[in-house]
Formats: sequence, structure tokens, C-alpha cells
Amino acid sequence: MIYLDNAATTFPKPESVYIAMDKANREHAVNAGRGSYRAAREANRIITETKQLLRDLIKVDINAAVVLAPSITIALNQIINGLDMRKGSVIYVSPYEHNAVARTVNKVALEKGIVVKEIPIDEQTLAIDLEKMKYEFSKDRPEFVFCTHVSNVTGYILPVQDIFAEAKKYGAITILDSAQSLGLIEIRASVINADIIAFAGHKTLYGPLGIGGFINISGIPLSTFITGGTGSDSLNLKMPDGAETHYEAASSNIVAIYGLYAALKTLNISENRSNEMMITRHLVKELNNIPRIKMFLPNEENHTGIISFIFDGMSSADLGQILDEDFDIAVRTGYHCAPFIHKYLKDESSLGTVRVGIGKFTTMHDVDCLVSALKELANE
Amino acid sequence: MIYLDNAATTFPKPESVYIAMDKANREHAVNAGRGSYRAAREANRIITETKQLLRDLIKVDINAAVVLAPSITIALNQIINGLDMRKGSVIYVSPYEHNAVARTVNKVALEKGIVVKEIPIDEQTLAIDLEKMKYEFSKDRPEFVFCTHVSNVTGYILPVQDIFAEAKKYGAITILDSAQSLGLIEIRASVINADIIAFAGHKTLYGPLGIGGFINISGIPLSTFITGGTGSDSLNLKMPDGAETHYEAASSNIVAIYGLYAALKTLNISENRSNEMMITRHLVKELNNIPRIKMFLPNEENHTGIISFIFDGMSSADLGQILDEDFDIAVRTGYHCAPFIHKYLKDESSLGTVRVGIGKFTTMHDVDCLVSALKELANE
Repeated sequence: MIYLDNAATTFPKPESVYIAMDKANREHAVNAGRGSYRAAREANRIITETKQLLRDLIKVDINAAVVLAPSITIALNQIINGLDMRKGSVIYVSPYEHNAVARTVNKVALEKGIVVKEIPIDEQTLAIDLEKMKYEFSKDRPEFVFCTHVSNVTGYILPVQDIFAEAKKYGAITILDSAQSLGLIEIRASVINADIIAFAGHKTLYGPLGIGGFINISGIPLSTFITGGTGSDSLNLKMPDGAETHYEAASSNIVAIYGLYAALKTLNISENRSNEMMITRHLVKELNNIPRIKMFLPNEENHTGIISFIFDGMSSADLGQILDEDFDIAVRTGYHCAPFIHKYLKDESSLGTVRVGIGKFTTMHDVDCLVSALKELANE
Repeated sequence: MIYLDNAATTFPKPESVYIAMDKANREHAVNAGRGSYRAAREANRIITETKQLLRDLIKVDINAAVVLAPSITIALNQIINGLDMRKGSVIYVSPYEHNAVARTVNKVALEKGIVVKEIPIDEQTLAIDLEKMKYEFSKDRPEFVFCTHVSNVTGYILPVQDIFAEAKKYGAITILDSAQSLGLIEIRASVINADIIAFAGHKTLYGPLGIGGFINISGIPLSTFITGGTGSDSLNLKMPDGAETHYEAASSNIVAIYGLYAALKTLNISENRSNEMMITRHLVKELNNIPRIKMFLPNEENHTGIISFIFDGMSSADLGQILDEDFDIAVRTGYHCAPFIHKYLKDESSLGTVRVGIGKFTTMHDVDCLVSALKELANE
């Protein structure tokens, strides 16, 4: 299989991740922090160190709470349901949000009577229209601003620093979805102006499925959303206090955490980024020569290794199926869990896009096979 | 390490679980059901088969919805927050509930104004007092009844069949927490009268951390609690319909699911149960001969491999620490995330109990080492 669905989950992972997980399963998979015995303390130590590696990654100190969750989806549910939004609160979301944000914001909006507004984009370039956004902010002052760092549909790197800086002029709380960026793009918390950064272990960080979370940089209070055992303060019918413990119910998935720890230990952001961009540029150039293909491309400097396109005369689903069955190439087709952006892509007649997700293990040969397949199909 | 904390998480797991997970990591860890390519379909097939094995286990047909979640805690949050409870609704919980139920019920009760009542127990035997319960039910008719199948503190098997049968006379909705029973005790859905059974992968099923869920046997409607991408119906800002899909946001943890699949394939309930009880009976007999030990024992026929005790003259925390440091024996001490039962155990002066959790891999030698250590300490 030629795997080009790295935007869904990166695959494979570094060998050290597999080794760490198997070893953790066999030697350390006990209930971290809930037992007073050495193995439980050792498991707990890895959790503490993993959290520190995450803090180091975005250059924050020990005061930033790192909450681990089974997925970034759960983390975003905790954040969005936990924020102090009230009837009439104005929140902005980017048009590139994933359903982990979009559906959750929609649910909370219906429950609480919140006003949800979309950050405007330029319909030609598909880039955020910062000037128009500033005007919108001045008209309807933002209280909460949610922004994905990188579109999982087009690979567009959003100008989150500018968006959040403007939001901060109004005292808004800013939340970054870094699912497609952390580990691929340098994020410095002090520069980016995010109060909370949600992250996924299994995408650009090259960790395993089953672990994600959020970093509450500014210590934004979040009301309780998920409750359960914490291995501490058991007689208390509320979740115990604590910027991290309060949000960490249930047994920690220590096997996935060992995997994430190993991934963070070997992470090389600049190498991952440059390799991905070299292959992406090559692929873009080649796809540009295939007449039936229309790509949705951001400017090169604001682009990661995700390319979405439509293919004239064939639905994306059909093309994906042919690439799989006849060429053993795995791409993703459809709407990619991003509900807003397709009205600008105008890709509904193709049933969404074909998405190519490049990863650190993608080779020139992989994308050349794709190009060759698409050329063959374009000439039929 | 002599591991006697199997009630927290069973350890080790069968070798086939480790092999399946490593293989899944290396070969199958793609986004199940979200791609149209073969590897994604193969991952999806294992999810479908795992769900069928779970249905087979409790003898229900394909109409029972099996919802997978990252943990039983998340599953119980989805159930308890999703049930149609309203101001004044009367719900009963057993005094043996874990905080995954107790804290979640408490949160929902505060939000919605629900009346929470405890199913009564006989304070001498610590068994459910069915006659008193019947009277309570007749006085305050139950609308929802939550019951753990096996106490994670004392190993007591609750008479859930009788409790739920009585609850059903009032048309109550019945929810079973099978964290400490599924895979160890035969559960036949048609007999036990549970509408919903929540389960944990990593305890008596001998699967990995990171996977749990619930089986909605009666198709009880649950409102949306967790939202996110489903890889389907992406333009819909609500979770798509479907008795399972509606509750399964985020990328499936396919590695953990492969592990659970392998665990279910090798599960031998009667063997696990008989082995555990042989060792448990032996340990109980030995501990009975140690004067400073007071066990909290249910009747033998209603007991699994969990034994809680206090040790005269020493706090449970101290005893746990000595067992770890001087004897390399891992037990669990404290309140075990079960907030209600300790008022009946009256163990607060010992800071909770010392809990021994026997598992399928526990040997006579393991428990003899514990007995020998405790004898030594009792004679000091």
C-alpha cells in the first residue's frame, strides 16, 4: 500500500514508538498514579515527563497545565463545554474548523444561546481576510475565538498569530486546534497568543492513537464536563481540584502515553517540515501538469503536506476507489469532517475532494506512483 | 513484582493481546471507516467483528447497539448525561458504585435537580437488602437504576438480576456497570434485565487500556454528549443518526480494538472464574489466620477475586508502602474510587482498605508471598 492519508493519522510511526508501546504493554501497563507501588509510580513518572516534553515543545513553563485525554476530540469537548459561555456570548470560529470544534460549538450554541460567527475569508484565495475580520470583530466583539492552525482539507496554515492578536484586543479567550500542526510547525506560546492549545497525539506528533489533550497556558477556568475516578480524593463526589487532575478522569492509557513519550523524544520539527515540503512542492508541480485536476492550494509559504483536489468528470469517491483498487494507493475522499469550508471550495458536485496527506515517511516514489496513476486516468 | 492490583487493571494480558496490538500498530493503524481504501476497510472489519464478539458474550442479537468509547468512564458519561432525566426524576444507585457513576450522577443531579437515592444494604453483611429496597421502590418509584455488577472494593457480586427485575416492575431504565464482571461472570442479557451494559476493556476482559463502551440492549435513546468527526455526513453540524455512529466521535483507537478483539477471542469465562476462586478461597483461609487482619468478605458464592481488609494498628497506606518496598508486592490502598461504601465498612480510621486483586495470571505462590509478608508484619 502507498499510504497518502497522513492527515487522518500518520502512518507508520517511528520504530521507537512501536517498541515503547510493546514494552509498556508488557512491563508497565498498570494503573498509573492510583497505586502506591513502584510500577504505578514509574508509570506516573512517564506521564509527568511526557507533559514536560509537551510544555517544552511550545516553550511554556511548569505553570501551564497539560491535561491528557484519550483524543483531541474529547479534549475539545472538555474545553468547549467547559468554557464560561452564556446566552448572547459571541464566539468566532474559522471556516476551516474540523467537526471536533464545529459540531461541539454547534451543540453548545443550541444549548446556551450563543452567537456563532465565522471568521471571513477571501473567496478567491481561500485565505483568511484579516481586514474584514477586524471589521467584524469591531462590530461584534469576540468573547471566544476558535481557530485551527492548519486546515485538514487544504493544508493552509492560518494566520493564527494575527487572528489571536486581534482577538486579544477585545479580551477574547483564544483556543488553537493544533491537530495538524504541533510537531510540524514551530509553536511558541508567547508569540501565538493562544490561551489554550488542543493537540492530537496521532497526527503530526507521530504518536499513537488513543492520546491527546490540551495545554491550558493561561489557566482559563473550565467547568467540569467529564467525571469519574481519579485515584485520589475518592470520597469527594466532585472532581478534585487541580488544573490537571480535575479534567483527568479514568485510568490513564499508559501504553499510548509511552508511545507519545517516545514520539516526542525523537521529534524533529524542522526535518519533518522540510521533508514534507520538498515532496509537497514536487507533487504540486506534477499535478499542475495534469489537465483534469484542480487543486485548492494556499500560497506555498502557508502550506503543509496536505493537498486537496477535484478531478474533472469523476467524483472524488470514485477516484479514491480506483486509486485503491487498481493502484493500491490510499488517499482520503469526501468532506474530511470539515463542514464549513466546502461552500467556498464549491466541491459538492465532486462529492468533496480527493485529499493527499504527506507524512515524514512519504517518499518521492510514493507520490510519483500517484502522479503516474492520475496521468493514466486523465488520459482515459 | 508480585502484582495483586488486578482490580485496577488486569496485568499481564494474554500474549495474543500484545502480539495483536504490535501487529495492528505496524500494519493496520490507519483511520478505520474514514477512508475508502482497503486498509481502512480492514480496520473497520475488525471493529465490526469485535462488536459482534461483545454481543455474543451477553447473548444478544445484531439489534443491540455496541458503542465503543475510549474508556468505560467516557461511556458512563455518555449514558448518564444522555439519559432523559428531568427535574424530580428519582434515580437509584447501589452503595457500591464507582466514581465513574457516582460523580457523574452527582454532576447531573446538581444540573438537573434529580433525586438520587441509595439502594439499601444490610449493614452487618454488607449485602443488598432486597426487602428494604422493594419497600423503598414502592415509596419512591425508580425511574433509573444504576448498579455495578461486582464491587471493586470487596468483590461482592450484587444481586443485579433481582434489583433490575424489581426496578422493571416500575418501568425503570436499568444500567449495569460490568467493569469488574464481564469476562469473569456469565451475563445473559435476557436474564439480567439490564437495558444498557457499560464495559471496560482492560479489566476482567483482559483487553488493553484505551477501549471500553456500552451495549444499548433496549435501544434507549440517549441525547448527544460528546461530539466530533465521524468520518461520515461531514456537512451535518449534528452527530449523524445511528444507534452506534451517533455516539462514536473521533478516530477509533484501532490498536486497542485489535487488542480487545484478541482478548475476546481467547476469553474463557469459566476457567478464569474457577482459577480466580481457587486462589481467592486459599487466600481468604490464610488471611483468616492472621489476627490483626479484618477482611470485608461477602458470602463465598457472591465473591470474586477482590479482597479488601484493614490491618489493626497500621494505616492501609503504610501497609501498602511496606508491602511494596520490603516485599515487592503491589496492592492497592485507599478508597478505590468508590465513595459510598466506606461509611458501611467504617474503614476511615485506616484510611480505607488494602485491596488485593486476583487475576487469571495470579499464582498460589503470589498469594503465599503476600500471606508470608503479612504474617511477618503481624508478629512485629
